[in-house]
Amino acid sequence: MTTVDVAGHLRTMRAHVPLVQCITNTVVQQFSANVLLAAGASPAMLDHEADSAQFARIANGILVNFGTATSHQLLAADAATAAAAETGTPWVLDPVSFGGVAHRSVHIRRLAWSRPTCIRGNASEIAALAGAGAGGRGIESTDEVDVILEHAGRLATSTGAIIAASGPRDAIIDTHPDAPDRLLLARVAGGSPLMPLVVGTGCSLAALTAAYLGAVPSEDARDRFAAVVTAHVHVAAAGAVAARTAEAPGSFAVAFLDALHTVSEDDLTAVDVTVETVERTHR
Amino acid sequence: MTTVDVAGHLRTMRAHVPLVQCITNTVVQQFSANVLLAAGASPAMLDHEADSAQFARIANGILVNFGTATSHQLLAADAATAAAAETGTPWVLDPVSFGGVAHRSVHIRRLAWSRPTCIRGNASEIAALAGAGAGGRGIESTDEVDVILEHAGRLATSTGAIIAASGPRDAIIDTHPDAPDRLLLARVAGGSPLMPLVVGTGCSLAALTAAYLGAVPSEDARDRFAAVVTAHVHVAAAGAVAARTAEAPGSFAVAFLDALHTVSEDDLTAVDVTVETVERTHR
Amino acid sequence: MTTVDVAGHLRTMRAHVPLVQCITNTVVQQFSANVLLAAGASPAMLDHEADSAQFARIANGILVNFGTATSHQLLAADAATAAAAETGTPWVLDPVSFGGVAHRSVHIRRLAWSRPTCIRGNASEIAALAGAGAGGRGIESTDEVDVILEHAGRLATSTGAIIAASGPRDAIIDTHPDAPDRLLLARVAGGSPLMPLVVGTGCSLAALTAAYLGAVPSEDARDRFAAVVTAHVHVAAAGAVAARTAEAPGSFAVAFLDALHTVSEDDLTAVDVTVETVERTHR
Repeated sequence: MTTVDVAGHLRTMRAHVPLVQCITNTVVQQFSANVLLAAGASPAMLDHEADSAQFARIANGILVNFGTATSHQLLAADAATAAAAETGTPWVLDPVSFGGVAHRSVHIRRLAWSRPTCIRGNASEIAALAGAGAGGRGIESTDEVDVILEHAGRLATSTGAIIAASGPRDAIIDTHPDAPDRLLLARVAGGSPLMPLVVGTGCSLAALTAAYLGAVPSEDARDRFAAVVTAHVHVAAAGAVAARTAEAPGSFAVAFLDALHTVSEDDLTAVDVTVETVERTHR
Repeated sequence: MTTVDVAGHLRTMRAHVPLVQCITNTVVQQFSANVLLAAGASPAMLDHEADSAQFARIANGILVNFGTATSHQLLAADAATAAAAETGTPWVLDPVSFGGVAHRSVHIRRLAWSRPTCIRGNASEIAALAGAGAGGRGIESTDEVDVILEHAGRLATSTGAIIAASGPRDAIIDTHPDAPDRLLLARVAGGSPLMPLVVGTGCSLAALTAAYLGAVPSEDARDRFAAVVTAHVHVAAAGAVAARTAEAPGSFAVAFLDALHTVSEDDLTAVDVTVETVERTHR
Repeated sequence: MTTVDVAGHLRTMRAHVPLVQCITNTVVQQFSANVLLAAGASPAMLDHEADSAQFARIANGILVNFGTATSHQLLAADAATAAAAETGTPWVLDPVSFGGVAHRSVHIRRLAWSRPTCIRGNASEIAALAGAGAGGRGIESTDEVDVILEHAGRLATSTGAIIAASGPRDAIIDTHPDAPDRLLLARVAGGSPLMPLVVGTGCSLAALTAAYLGAVPSEDARDRFAAVVTAHVHVAAAGAVAARTAEAPGSFAVAFLDALHTVSEDDLTAVDVTVETVERTHR
């Protein structure tokens, strides 16, 4: 696997209009819903424990993000992910500010080892979840992808999840489907330095990842890896397009939503993506 | 009744600046508040059971939307609508995703038969609430207004509420104040295909409906029907104005808020509205 | 003290990137986070009682706003402000709609006399909290700053907090550090009449005040007063810049976020600010 058919995955996602159940923090609910709608998916923010499992059975993908988790949401995530395990529905864990405070870290850690399809966070959250470092202060990005590659690989192996570490250059890591001592590693460059100045760009990328996973017709590991990569490419392309016209965060957020909607298969193909097979450096 | 004085109702609403208590989902709270402010009303999002009844007594109109209802909100809605029943304050029920999941459907159904002044949803939610069909998947619109007219009429008769089914063409249905075997039916055309790509356009229309109802000085059935129609006309006019300059959902949302603020009485008068009296086709 | 070094405080805040914990209402969480990011600070919206105290110990400033307070948030605020008292971390109370309803007023009043560093509200909320008047209807501004000066002075004396009353012209009042019978009074003019039409402009000003306080290296009373003034000057400058290009609330909100990011030290210096020492007129 040396390339990803990003154009094909965009086409599939838009044709499928995947229904994404988001159990996510209230700060970014509106923006995440608008990102999903603009990109071509369908959001539903049901996060009450009394109906989250029932809804999970009709959703195509699920996102869990405990950024402002209420007790309702903690219970709703348990119910929804248990239902997803039964139906084979893909789900994404966004470990927002893991390591920063104990309460949420307990719940994030438990879910991380409950078979998520993908864990998407920034480099410091991924490193902290893998057992290295103390995690970030809030929802910040640091450009330490190379530093955390070993940690991300260990996390992929121990959780079975595709690991996506977002930053100025994203890294997506998965265990190799055919070689237990190797990893798949994709790197996605693009976006804009204005993205960290708009709240929810990372959180909504996790939601869009659930959308792309939800549009994949099979549970094939390569297809799922490619779906995660394409979500990152879609956001990188939209960020680059938005940065052409916007120079400050307010107008950038508007242009970013526009671009998620208007980007073409060619725009996605133009994003700098590399896919390689690397040695596992962790035990 | 063959016409609605939309210019007069806009003038009345803006002069009154109705205070609208919104017990609504957290995804659309910000957008709904901005819609109310831009249109000329005053929002207040109090949704705790400990103060919702007290606030309901000073509000001019109330909205209930259980899109992400917490237990707080379920109790707050009971308290607020009970207070509204005592004071005669109009209130609007938005049955978001009724029929999709059991938990919220129980609570929505109970409120639908608790004498709301208006029930505003999309066609599939209205049909499901009337007992036909299974409801929608999330907050989506379908253009089945003609299909659901019979259901909407039955719902108007059994609940006593004005029924508003939103979509590419809105339908507002009420029992006829003078003829028990007839219904009032208004149709409003306009808006933009970009509206379903911005989260909260439907939910905020329900909030604006509560604002227009809250500005009506009497409990006269015709005035209230006209108020509901004018809320839909206001949104249709603003959507059409916004669509002239915006071609994607991010910039459309901004232009829509601008247009809600700047549209004139002439803009509302230009919207295609028909009002007719039709036979009740249901028993 | 006759002037405030607003350029210096802007520089300090942006250099420090203060981490601000916001326990605030869900209506304005997204906007407040974007205001903080655009201005140069770092938001974190942790509001669960189980981790708010732990996070408060690493935050530089804290905001408490009970606009849609859940029981979670009420407990979280108690925990966070108790931690802040131990660490000397500055915190800001925004008494949203104090006096309007009993439930939240009880909790707001209790916190107001729990040694906040600053209380920022509109004139009617400040007056009501000082014991005069019944408070506002929701989150509205009235231009009664001169009327409430005596009340604000009394509130500053009795709570020990810097009192900021926002409106078309803001007033910031503090007890004089050297003269017990005198008060410091700063007035800030600017902004735009469109600001009250965008939900969260007041609430996010309170968040930004916590950011500026969090960037002050000492607990010096004059520095903290100047920090509060500079937060208001930053918002006034951004509002004025935004009003040059935007004529309606949707585009104004976008331009305002842009301007918070792009305003320079010169833009802040250009804002009309007066600082004077006045007699205490209350007993």
